[in-house]
Amino acid sequence: MLGSNRKGAMMLTGLSAFPITPSDAAGRVDAAALRDLLAPLLAARVDSIGLLGSTGTYAYLAREERRRAVEAAVEMASGRTPIVVGVGALRTDEAVRLAQDAKAAGASAGLLAPVSYTPLTEDEVFEHFATVARESGLPLCIYDNPSTTHFKVGPALVGRLSRIPGVVGLKTSAPDAPQVPAHLAELRSVAPASFQIGYSADWNVVEGLLAGADAWYSVVAGLFPEICMAMVRAARSGDAAQARSLNAQLQPLWDVFKAHSSLRVMYAVAKLRGLTRADPPRPLLPLPKAAQEKVAEALRAAKLT
Amino acid sequence: MLGSNRKGAMMLTGLSAFPITPSDAAGRVDAAALRDLLAPLLAARVDSIGLLGSTGTYAYLAREERRRAVEAAVEMASGRTPIVVGVGALRTDEAVRLAQDAKAAGASAGLLAPVSYTPLTEDEVFEHFATVARESGLPLCIYDNPSTTHFKVGPALVGRLSRIPGVVGLKTSAPDAPQVPAHLAELRSVAPASFQIGYSADWNVVEGLLAGADAWYSVVAGLFPEICMAMVRAARSGDAAQARSLNAQLQPLWDVFKAHSSLRVMYAVAKLRGLTRADPPRPLLPLPKAAQEKVAEALRAAKLT
Repeated sequence: MLGSNRKGAMMLTGLSAFPITPSDAAGRVDAAALRDLLAPLLAARVDSIGLLGSTGTYAYLAREERRRAVEAAVEMASGRTPIVVGVGALRTDEAVRLAQDAKAAGASAGLLAPVSYTPLTEDEVFEHFATVARESGLPLCIYDNPSTTHFKVGPALVGRLSRIPGVVGLKTSAPDAPQVPAHLAELRSVAPASFQIGYSADWNVVEGLLAGADAWYSVVAGLFPEICMAMVRAARSGDAAQARSLNAQLQPLWDVFKAHSSLRVMYAVAKLRGLTRADPPRPLLPLPKAAQEKVAEALRAAKLT
Repeated sequence: MLGSNRKGAMMLTGLSAFPITPSDAAGRVDAAALRDLLAPLLAARVDSIGLLGSTGTYAYLAREERRRAVEAAVEMASGRTPIVVGVGALRTDEAVRLAQDAKAAGASAGLLAPVSYTPLTEDEVFEHFATVARESGLPLCIYDNPSTTHFKVGPALVGRLSRIPGVVGLKTSAPDAPQVPAHLAELRSVAPASFQIGYSADWNVVEGLLAGADAWYSVVAGLFPEICMAMVRAARSGDAAQARSLNAQLQPLWDVFKAHSSLRVMYAVAKLRGLTRADPPRPLLPLPKAAQEKVAEALRAAKLT
């Protein structure tokens, strides 16, 4: 079992780029537009694609559309770049089916978020993960994102989940800089050595990388992979000044992410750049005009135009 | 439009009883078991059935299962008792379809919760409600339940939503007793006179009823309609002492609701009483043995056995 954990875990290191998933008003995924978004990520040699993450609107897409998106991405990546797929669902049996679909389509790992409506207990989340891991055989990364799932996977539960065969890593929000070393050390202390710990919340990630986190689960890399790859390389080579300088360059984007949500901002950026005309799924709305202008300003300020 | 608002709003007064929706492990609704749960509610002449509420696990059931549940309930009620149906969904188009289904099946009104994954803005929630009301023609009650939807419908938004043709009422959690009069007065002040304001959160409702709220959206009435009807009648006739005494009788049940969630407790009660063997949908788990014993004790203490 440890062997299979290790193999899965290798998919969960470095830069994972999370693209949006263009879909029409009826929720049908535009596979051609998705391929156009993936091509530059693969060309930039990101370490993995985080397909159907929160920014990839997995929660809003039906099973069949999610399957079509995975198939398109796996085909594009043609074995060179691991495809890591959001398989979260409100029902356990639906998450099992999504993980089975992802595995059958050739995904390397699944991102499983404890999506909730009725607030969940820790035992319920544990059984949910154990069932999806066992029934699907897909290596799973714990997708901790309380702002969307409304469940916080704390260190004690990470420890329990990391012992489930097939649960190979954790994606969690990076805390503010001063808390990063203790946060990472605590998570390392509760999980097996082979367990991969990576950070999301782009605006806080640089210190996490410098502290030795295994991965950056990056929204901004879904459209700007080059600067993110440069940041990961700088952090890995111990060039903290360069990593922090690149992060500082992106600060204007972090500001609009925090003001308007990274998902809405990324849709606005994709449209501004003429990559897709897709809007987020309703009830989510495109950013209002004034906010779109702030986004355009942020791109200029971050030298991303 | 005001006329249609008034007609719909008449469905949203008095005691609305919210039963669980028995379903099997695959999410298939057991219509026969549902009918058995509805029969005593109709016999007790509750003012409406709150079908597929949060306790009715609407969020966990597929469209077809929800439609079968509505059809079974409408047939049982045979026009004597309004069926008010949860039509919430993460996607606006899905909520439209659910509301259309409910209307086609003969439901009197829909309960629309602003279910969220990506946190929603007020404008997004407004457009969501306007679209569902317009496209379905089903009178809608705003279902404000931030502990599950993670969106709080505050007074300003209630004011906006209450002006949408077809949005006829509000179901919101009753605050603690000292806050009730001001809370209700504020909501009354923002909405048209015909707009119906009712309370959920059973353990706090009695003071809301005494203060003149239009309805009690009651979980406990899903299994114990008689005592709830008695409480509503006492409150309506101005017998505050009797209403509070009945509420005090139920205090042991309120305590286990707060400790273990009313949904999990109601499943345990239904099983204890031999009404259904259904468990809540996974990942939700039946209460552990020790908690089940607390529930049994609470029933005895509340003289409900």
